[in-house]
Amino acid sequence: MRILSGIRPTGKPHIGNYVGALKNWKKLQDEGHECFYFVADWHALTTNYSETSELKKLTKDVVRSFLACGLDPNKSVLFVQSAIKEHAELALLFSMIVPVSWLERVPTYKEMKQELSNKDLSNTGFLFYPVLQAADILIYLAEGVPVGQDQVYHIELTREIARRFNYFYGETFPEPQALLSVVPKLPGTDGRKMSKSYGNIIPLEFDAVSLEKMILPMVTDPARKRRTDPGNPENCPVWEYHKAFGISEEESQWVIEGCTQAKIGCVDCKRLLLKNMKRELEPIWQRYAEIDKDPRYVDDVIYSGNEKAREVARKTMQIVRERMNLLF
Amino acid sequence: MRILSGIRPTGKPHIGNYVGALKNWKKLQDEGHECFYFVADWHALTTNYSETSELKKLTKDVVRSFLACGLDPNKSVLFVQSAIKEHAELALLFSMIVPVSWLERVPTYKEMKQELSNKDLSNTGFLFYPVLQAADILIYLAEGVPVGQDQVYHIELTREIARRFNYFYGETFPEPQALLSVVPKLPGTDGRKMSKSYGNIIPLEFDAVSLEKMILPMVTDPARKRRTDPGNPENCPVWEYHKAFGISEEESQWVIEGCTQAKIGCVDCKRLLLKNMKRELEPIWQRYAEIDKDPRYVDDVIYSGNEKAREVARKTMQIVRERMNLLF
Ligand code: SF4
Ligand code: SF4
Repeated sequence: MRILSGIRPTGKPHIGNYVGALKNWKKLQDEGHECFYFVADWHALTTNYSETSELKKLTKDVVRSFLACGLDPNKSVLFVQSAIKEHAELALLFSMIVPVSWLERVPTYKEMKQELSNKDLSNTGFLFYPVLQAADILIYLAEGVPVGQDQVYHIELTREIARRFNYFYGETFPEPQALLSVVPKLPGTDGRKMSKSYGNIIPLEFDAVSLEKMILPMVTDPARKRRTDPGNPENCPVWEYHKAFGISEEESQWVIEGCTQAKIGCVDCKRLLLKNMKRELEPIWQRYAEIDKDPRYVDDVIYSGNEKAREVARKTMQIVRERMNLLF
Repeated sequence: MRILSGIRPTGKPHIGNYVGALKNWKKLQDEGHECFYFVADWHALTTNYSETSELKKLTKDVVRSFLACGLDPNKSVLFVQSAIKEHAELALLFSMIVPVSWLERVPTYKEMKQELSNKDLSNTGFLFYPVLQAADILIYLAEGVPVGQDQVYHIELTREIARRFNYFYGETFPEPQALLSVVPKLPGTDGRKMSKSYGNIIPLEFDAVSLEKMILPMVTDPARKRRTDPGNPENCPVWEYHKAFGISEEESQWVIEGCTQAKIGCVDCKRLLLKNMKRELEPIWQRYAEIDKDPRYVDDVIYSGNEKAREVARKTMQIVRERMNLLF
């Protein structure tokens, strides 16, 4: 199965990106799928157009994180969106056949506008971005797109665009499926939604000491005011982290019993979490250090990934242009 | 001065295109300006997306007409929009900074929707097209854009986009000026607006016999029911044609007097028009025949024009990407 997914370089990758996307991407890669993973730097501009000073650095940093998470440039095609100009061309061509109303009814359109109300999102690029996303996906003839629940509508829209193109110009694009991640979104360390302004995000590139400093003061079930108060893991963000970082059946029992019967303290529970997080994250931290030993490695990976992606994108565009009767 | 203008290949070029655009383009070229003239085939898709079977042919035919009208590939850069993918990239980048409201308030947006009510113009490309147009113009750092009155707002919008880009990312684009054509729009031979469905359009590629067949039955001032009824050239489409096809001062007097005092018949008046039209159009018709002698000539012109345009577009995009801090 051909898989495609991307991450917007709007900040340094964090454990939310890891749990919600990168971990699953690696799994799909290791299952032998043909994976295309990219840094959606043009998409970052849809919301962050007014402040781009860090964009280059963040773009490279996402690729570094791809590698640190075990994505293998010999197995998966790792590339940067802005290097493949064909995405822009296909998005423009798609714009000809996509009714504006399809974009206005995207559920996240109004939501995100509210959520990011500190930003001016009245820009055309923000309205237009599902069209660019459809181009990102369809140009590689991807069949599966790992996404979160909030992106399901976009994949449906991508399928509609594929169908409409096929209807006007002849069968060209497959209709990709959303591969829904089973993992719910990880909350911030204060239990609220992860947000840079809350300072509640754990970076993916980190170290054991800093991790401890963020995990130990984590917000827990408010019912456990004292060590002797029983709690409920379901009301506790620490429990969400436990589920995301490979807690064993036995450990799970220990937490649930310990918490609900006040047999363990929250610090005990967090120490267990720290152990499990470190087991999973330490190899990633090591790979970050490994990667940085060769200062040209990330650039080389990007270069060769772009070449592979471009080859596929070019082939698709040749067909698209021919079908639409464009001279070029 | 660097000049840029384009024509949409939505039909075979006609004398309206010649009088309203191509004639002026040649004048600007001959005045020694640095001219970029292109076939806006992507723009044609904004309204004609559902029927593209003729698009390639029409695109080449517009370039043939450029040449027939005396545009010289050694003086002007003649190219095809879809060959310069950088236009799509720049349009995408502009979309990030252009508020949707700027596009919704384009006066022609609602007008054209009504005018072309037989077509579904609810597509995103139609809303988006002033952004693509701004990219077409600004990517060549054009200073002057010969346009008709209906396009003045688009050039104003282009200037606003240039200013906004310069504001966010530093001084990059000049603010182009609309070079308003002094020629009013030529009516169709029936006095109504030119329209394919009215059959009132004279093709640019034509011959003397066919021209006569269209000019002699032309609608005239309805006051001149009989030869002896006086008329008024201001109420007559033939007069519009006279003004467009180099009537002399003396001939002008003859028509005005003859018409208002019923000294001449409308056929006399049209014979004079035919003489003047032929003087101007026959060299064009001959060049059409000339061009077709070498079946590869038009392709060669397009190829080398594209190369020249691409070089300029690439340079601009290098600066744009650098200013926006894009990795590619
Ligand atoms: S014991 Fe663990 S699950 Fe229960 S409230 Fe404390 S941290 Fe949360
Ligand atoms: S004489 Fe000429 S200008 Fe007057 S009505 Fe006839 S065609 Fe028109």
